[in-house]
Amino acid sequence: MADRDRVIYGLHSVEAVIASRVGTVKSAVVLDAKPRGSLAEIVARLEAAGVRVERAGRDVLDRLSQGGAHQGVVLQVPPPREQDLNALEQLVETRGDALRLLVLDQVEDPRNLGACLRTADAAGVDAVVVPKARSAKLSGAALKAAAGAAETVPLVIVPNLARMLRWLSDAGVRLVGTDERGERSLFEAELTPPVAIVLGAEGKGLRRLTREACDELVRIPMQGSVESLNVSVAAGVVLYEMLRQSR
Amino acid sequence: MADRDRVIYGLHSVEAVIASRVGTVKSAVVLDAKPRGSLAEIVARLEAAGVRVERAGRDVLDRLSQGGAHQGVVLQVPPPREQDLNALEQLVETRGDALRLLVLDQVEDPRNLGACLRTADAAGVDAVVVPKARSAKLSGAALKAAAGAAETVPLVIVPNLARMLRWLSDAGVRLVGTDERGERSLFEAELTPPVAIVLGAEGKGLRRLTREACDELVRIPMQGSVESLNVSVAAGVVLYEMLRQSR
Repeated sequence: MADRDRVIYGLHSVEAVIASRVGTVKSAVVLDAKPRGSLAEIVARLEAAGVRVERAGRDVLDRLSQGGAHQGVVLQVPPPREQDLNALEQLVETRGDALRLLVLDQVEDPRNLGACLRTADAAGVDAVVVPKARSAKLSGAALKAAAGAAETVPLVIVPNLARMLRWLSDAGVRLVGTDERGERSLFEAELTPPVAIVLGAEGKGLRRLTREACDELVRIPMQGSVESLNVSVAAGVVLYEMLRQSR
Repeated sequence: MADRDRVIYGLHSVEAVIASRVGTVKSAVVLDAKPRGSLAEIVARLEAAGVRVERAGRDVLDRLSQGGAHQGVVLQVPPPREQDLNALEQLVETRGDALRLLVLDQVEDPRNLGACLRTADAAGVDAVVVPKARSAKLSGAALKAAAGAAETVPLVIVPNLARMLRWLSDAGVRLVGTDERGERSLFEAELTPPVAIVLGAEGKGLRRLTREACDELVRIPMQGSVESLNVSVAAGVVLYEMLRQSR
């Protein structure tokens, strides 16, 4: 197994890989019983794509998934492909006025990156954009927290976040950052597409250049004593308000 | 240090403890420099409450906080007090029509419990309610994820969740559960106080008796391929919609 390869297991995550990039599957192991239902379909789709499907006992699958809930199937695949500026330009063109992006500035915890991908998938976001420097990578911990969303939501890595934001703004995408000093509350802001929601890392918030590139800064109301929300919770709160407004 | 004691560090968490229960502080250690600003104020408040404040070097604080971001202060305290049904009854009475509760059914991961407390604090929730059986406890991992909110948001532990829900309903509190089979979407539901938001554990959802006790089940819209949100993200999405509706 190549160093960077990932182990994917569980019906849902495996189906996500098959749907998006079955050609990249290096190996597949299924439980040595007569597969039925979803599992039978997975085997058929893998074999139709020319993947050799090995049979093994539960102990082997438990070991391959390191005790994870494999549901009878484990794949070995290269990590999900990270996208670059070209992919983002295409997305801006094809999605047009429906574009929804989530931009993460300096989120360095891989579990937070994964949780943001999962939340972005649920809220119908087209891509998550991060800067190349000081961002978490799609590690095993990130993929686990993403619960399959790393296969479905493109992660776009850009060399210079502030420059990319200015380019998006010129392309007519509204940039809404969250900041405790924001003038309007989240609920008063306009979050309808085409829009990019820009979140900073916990504690640190947005960097100055990122903040200055935003069209508007909004406050997430904080009613208690904690100073901030976890970044994936903040993403959920803002992205679902976007979803509500764009119904 | 007693077995169940907790180490609390960082300006914000320490301030939360001082504000809510300075009388329980067993020991306090601050950085052996002339304290200024918030730290000086913390020392003054601890000393005014009769707590002996020890001075130590950075290495001692680093060790006590196990490498955490202590910001120059570490306390030793008993765990936050868990509340019982009596406290809940009082809360229902004193908060009246403004009551906002978060009920967690079988959330067993302490980090998820802590993250839910943090989110509940931010959304102005009066208390988080959990059943005694099959719920995470306020462990060190839970307290860390709560980011101080375990000091400010009461955690109420009840012996029988379904019975407590029926009692709340009789007391005029609207019970809104989330369930993928819910008839209305979150955005169409009425979430104004007095209300209890009821969330189930990831994957398992609400137990039948819990589901049946709810006045309404609502769906969180899922636009992508993942099957569910992390429970603390779901809490954020629903509680902030409650907050939006009750402005």
